[in-house]
Amino acid sequence: MRLDDVVTPAAVIDHAAMMRNIARMQTRMDTLGVRLRPHVKTSKCIAVGTLQRDAGAPGITVSTLKEAEEFFSAGFDDILYAVGIAPQKLDRVLALRRAGCRLAVLVDSVTGADAVVARGRAEGHAFDVVIEIDTDGHRAGVDPESTTLIDIGRRLADGGATLQGVLAHAGSSYGLSTPEALAQIAEQERRRTVRAAERLRAAGLPCPQVSIGSTPTALSAQNLEGVTEVRAGVYVFFDLVMANVGVCRPDEIALSVLTTVIGHQVEKGWAIVDAGWMAMSRDRGTQSQAIDYGYGAVCDADGRLVDGWIMLGANQEHGILGRRADGAERAGEGEGEGDDDVARRFPIGTRLRILPNHACATAAQFSAYQVVDTAGDVAVWPRFNGW
Amino acid sequence: MRLDDVVTPAAVIDHAAMMRNIARMQTRMDTLGVRLRPHVKTSKCIAVGTLQRDAGAPGITVSTLKEAEEFFSAGFDDILYAVGIAPQKLDRVLALRRAGCRLAVLVDSVTGADAVVARGRAEGHAFDVVIEIDTDGHRAGVDPESTTLIDIGRRLADGGATLQGVLAHAGSSYGLSTPEALAQIAEQERRRTVRAAERLRAAGLPCPQVSIGSTPTALSAQNLEGVTEVRAGVYVFFDLVMANVGVCRPDEIALSVLTTVIGHQVEKGWAIVDAGWMAMSRDRGTQSQAIDYGYGAVCDADGRLVDGWIMLGANQEHGILGRRADGAERAGEGEGEGDDDVARRFPIGTRLRILPNHACATAAQFSAYQVVDTAGDVAVWPRFNGW
Repeated sequence: MRLDDVVTPAAVIDHAAMMRNIARMQTRMDTLGVRLRPHVKTSKCIAVGTLQRDAGAPGITVSTLKEAEEFFSAGFDDILYAVGIAPQKLDRVLALRRAGCRLAVLVDSVTGADAVVARGRAEGHAFDVVIEIDTDGHRAGVDPESTTLIDIGRRLADGGATLQGVLAHAGSSYGLSTPEALAQIAEQERRRTVRAAERLRAAGLPCPQVSIGSTPTALSAQNLEGVTEVRAGVYVFFDLVMANVGVCRPDEIALSVLTTVIGHQVEKGWAIVDAGWMAMSRDRGTQSQAIDYGYGAVCDADGRLVDGWIMLGANQEHGILGRRADGAERAGEGEGEGDDDVARRFPIGTRLRILPNHACATAAQFSAYQVVDTAGDVAVWPRFNGW
Repeated sequence: MRLDDVVTPAAVIDHAAMMRNIARMQTRMDTLGVRLRPHVKTSKCIAVGTLQRDAGAPGITVSTLKEAEEFFSAGFDDILYAVGIAPQKLDRVLALRRAGCRLAVLVDSVTGADAVVARGRAEGHAFDVVIEIDTDGHRAGVDPESTTLIDIGRRLADGGATLQGVLAHAGSSYGLSTPEALAQIAEQERRRTVRAAERLRAAGLPCPQVSIGSTPTALSAQNLEGVTEVRAGVYVFFDLVMANVGVCRPDEIALSVLTTVIGHQVEKGWAIVDAGWMAMSRDRGTQSQAIDYGYGAVCDADGRLVDGWIMLGANQEHGILGRRADGAERAGEGEGEGDDDVARRFPIGTRLRILPNHACATAAQFSAYQVVDTAGDVAVWPRFNGW
């Protein structure tokens, strides 16, 4: 099959670009001397995870138990579930562990730890547990200097659980855009997570694993002393948010949405395409960044950027393409510059590819990837959604 | 099954609320003397479409050929595909029509009409075609006063197609919020679309169907003279955007996302839940409205609103719940007021329901609905996605 035969809209992976992205991150982690534990929430695709494993990353990170179940069925057995465990979900965790999956769960409170321990004791089982550390006030996790950290560690050392280590995610790195600021947040993530591990060890508690990561910090860290593994997800595809953060170029983005021109508003300089927000997702992650790409950046059918063209606005199954306003970095939905040549430039039936703001969100709108190789042949790789 | 048994996050339909919403719109259309053609892009669920049909709406509107194929397989044969047709998609249209589906397609250019006509002639087939009219500069469609309108009509009268009528969608109604402004845009949508029909008829062309609609204009129109049918989608569930527009109350919203509390940041007054943007969607449609609900409004497990609580921010599988800032209508992501009682108010394991900004976008994140009746019993209704 060729891309010309694919029904639009469709999620396209540029295989060569993805392989370069995988190699870049793996090489970097190898150089820094830590294990890479890719976050499969980005692709939710066994074939992509297998390529990451083959490149040198045996374990994976998941954001849902569905991901754990799907990847375990495909032979992945070293899995970290990096979202705080809801007590009601321990049934499924237990089923996976009893089937041979080394699945670790996450807690960031004494209450959460108690729930895991109680269930483990009742089942005669010791859950592998990691404590989430808050290194940047982003979301979840305990303060590395808190007494709560030690309290949680002690609860987990008392049967029903095995304390495997600590984990942090410097999500605030997504809001930065200079190498200096990124190196600083990466060092902060490392230092505070290592500090939490040291405090647990000083209290006589085990803490073999020290897990940190996000794509921006993984690619910006200068030193990972004390860290045992790094987690990163979106690097496998990259996206426009990451380009604005400064950790990739737009032409390194491996995921795009193939679409067809279905109409024009010539006076406004718009081309209307059959990829709206149902295909792109509603993610407007570049809205607050240096370059606002609207709902995505326009490329030709071969994936080459069409300079200055973005998806200005999106309805469910309609995308509005136009020029980004000259002299202004901010697009604003539905705004843009006129182009009365638009109908000749992009006739009805023209195929284009749109680079996404946020690869995880755009990929989630599809049940499969159309994977195009350098010869232009297309393979279909299924992905899954749900919980 | 009961809601307590449902794995979170999950999309919940309040069956009684949905039935009231269906009855409200159908009664209104009956009173105004027009047919209702529900847009099934909101639910993408055969069971929901069947309830709308049973209430008095025999035909449906679709946004994708997948919807047309799924609903035709389920016995719906009067279908309007309300997105401009890409020439490459005529194969699937033809297959449906030859199987007995009265599927109409949409064009808004001479080029688009020519493509349909050429294919129809080559196949010895007459496609049912509707011309899209632009009544508010929102997106697609031709000016009702343009010569292009008549040109398109003439092309369609020359074999290969049957001109069925005109269609408009006053999408700009979503940006309004007063009854007066809504009544005005509804009248503008009606008047300009009827005008287009009259111009076609004056040119000697057939125009039996005059189709308009959006949920806000359908519920705001005072008079639908000259209109034959109204299309509306989101009314079946309603959502917070529609509540801000003023066409429903928050307690009339029939769709919510069931979620579980997994942690807290007590100093910040946050509860962390297992529904992030993967469950809610990235839709921030209330961001520019009178009340910014963040990623959604918090209800208890029975669906009763928890006053002032919203989802302040969302990551892929984490939602951050907190109080909307007092004295300010705008939430802003991640902001909100502290509440050091949050861990007692919403202990880990607590189940909540979150009302969505945009029902179409949130529903699309799920493969099934958990439909709860007044006795608290839950039925699972599948839905589909894709193209």
